[in-house]
Amino acid sequence: MPKKAVVLLSGGLDSTTLLYYALDRGFKAYCLIFDYGQRHKKEILKAKKIAQQTACAYHVAKISLPWQGSSLLDKSMRLPYHTSIDPKDIPSTYVPARNIIFLSFAASYAEVIGARGIFIGVNALDYSGYPDCRPEFITAYQQVLKKGLKTGVKGQWIKIYTPLIRKTKAQIIRMGLKRHVPYAMTWSCYQGERRPCGTCDSCLLRARGFEAVGQKDPGIK
Amino acid sequence: MPKKAVVLLSGGLDSTTLLYYALDRGFKAYCLIFDYGQRHKKEILKAKKIAQQTACAYHVAKISLPWQGSSLLDKSMRLPYHTSIDPKDIPSTYVPARNIIFLSFAASYAEVIGARGIFIGVNALDYSGYPDCRPEFITAYQQVLKKGLKTGVKGQWIKIYTPLIRKTKAQIIRMGLKRHVPYAMTWSCYQGERRPCGTCDSCLLRARGFEAVGQKDPGIK
Repeated sequence: MPKKAVVLLSGGLDSTTLLYYALDRGFKAYCLIFDYGQRHKKEILKAKKIAQQTACAYHVAKISLPWQGSSLLDKSMRLPYHTSIDPKDIPSTYVPARNIIFLSFAASYAEVIGARGIFIGVNALDYSGYPDCRPEFITAYQQVLKKGLKTGVKGQWIKIYTPLIRKTKAQIIRMGLKRHVPYAMTWSCYQGERRPCGTCDSCLLRARGFEAVGQKDPGIK
Repeated sequence: MPKKAVVLLSGGLDSTTLLYYALDRGFKAYCLIFDYGQRHKKEILKAKKIAQQTACAYHVAKISLPWQGSSLLDKSMRLPYHTSIDPKDIPSTYVPARNIIFLSFAASYAEVIGARGIFIGVNALDYSGYPDCRPEFITAYQQVLKKGLKTGVKGQWIKIYTPLIRKTKAQIIRMGLKRHVPYAMTWSCYQGERRPCGTCDSCLLRARGFEAVGQKDPGIK
């Protein structure tokens, strides 16, 4: 019987690559998708389609963060038009505790279905400086799963897998191309309009990745 | 200006005592109440009333855990009629990752409002053996807040306060009586019927506490 894993799927480039990677590693993937009030709601639809495409089970967890505190949630705020890679300069798109929350639901889901792993597509190289994408955060969270879950007390492990964490965007894209990830189906832009804006952090990082690989981004028509 | 803190409030005996304790310590409390599909939905109403009684701001966070995995969520399961205090024997009322989830929302809320503390009424003495009520879990989570939040990276701290963690139920009740906690307003029973069932773990622990203090439980009419 294949090992089960919960895969955090946003519908973006990184998490879709992650899903294909997990499947390639032989895991039976259960996708967890979040509707957390993000302005690019469109990614939720993309994520669902990707889960369906791979014939994986999925859940969409609806979360309300009424206190907002992020330009990714609060439409009255402007999105920043630059890409910062200085982790001390965290942009306004940072959502307080986002991955802390996402991993908490993943832990609950994983324990109930008897999964032994959680895959999360965090990346601490070509990223926006979010603290909850760094290896030290994941290490700390791993301890929480060990101490706070029944499976942890019983000496079993739900391991957090972060295969993208130390990769450049170009390396991630190469990982995906090798596994035939349908990048045309993925969505990265924070704006969530009909077409990618090409200027938000997420668009810029993605464009740089495809440029470095020397490929046209199939997500841009 | 008083220091702000997020207080996790369930409407039960412990968290209500916790709220009064936090206020007594001079914190401005922001109550966070969870509607997570618990069968004793009644506690949510009680929690709201308690927040209103103390004139504290509050949010009710609605959470869906469709994978359930707990007799506290799944009404087709029976509640256990015993009290286990052996942490190796975790009863079916355990909700996978519950406090991991609760603290994640509290972290988000706390960071946005600029709170420096989160109060959680976990107790590892007169409790049901839930792993996410133990000091080692809280210690691990504190690290997550340090590594995963912007405030952590900036060298500030959101501290998790657990003033009840090593207290007996009787000691908690005494803490509360000293601070005039309106125990008649609190709700502990897992069943959530018109009156407390008197036989679930939560009722039993509460009854033992009042017995040890030598007081009548004002929550039982």
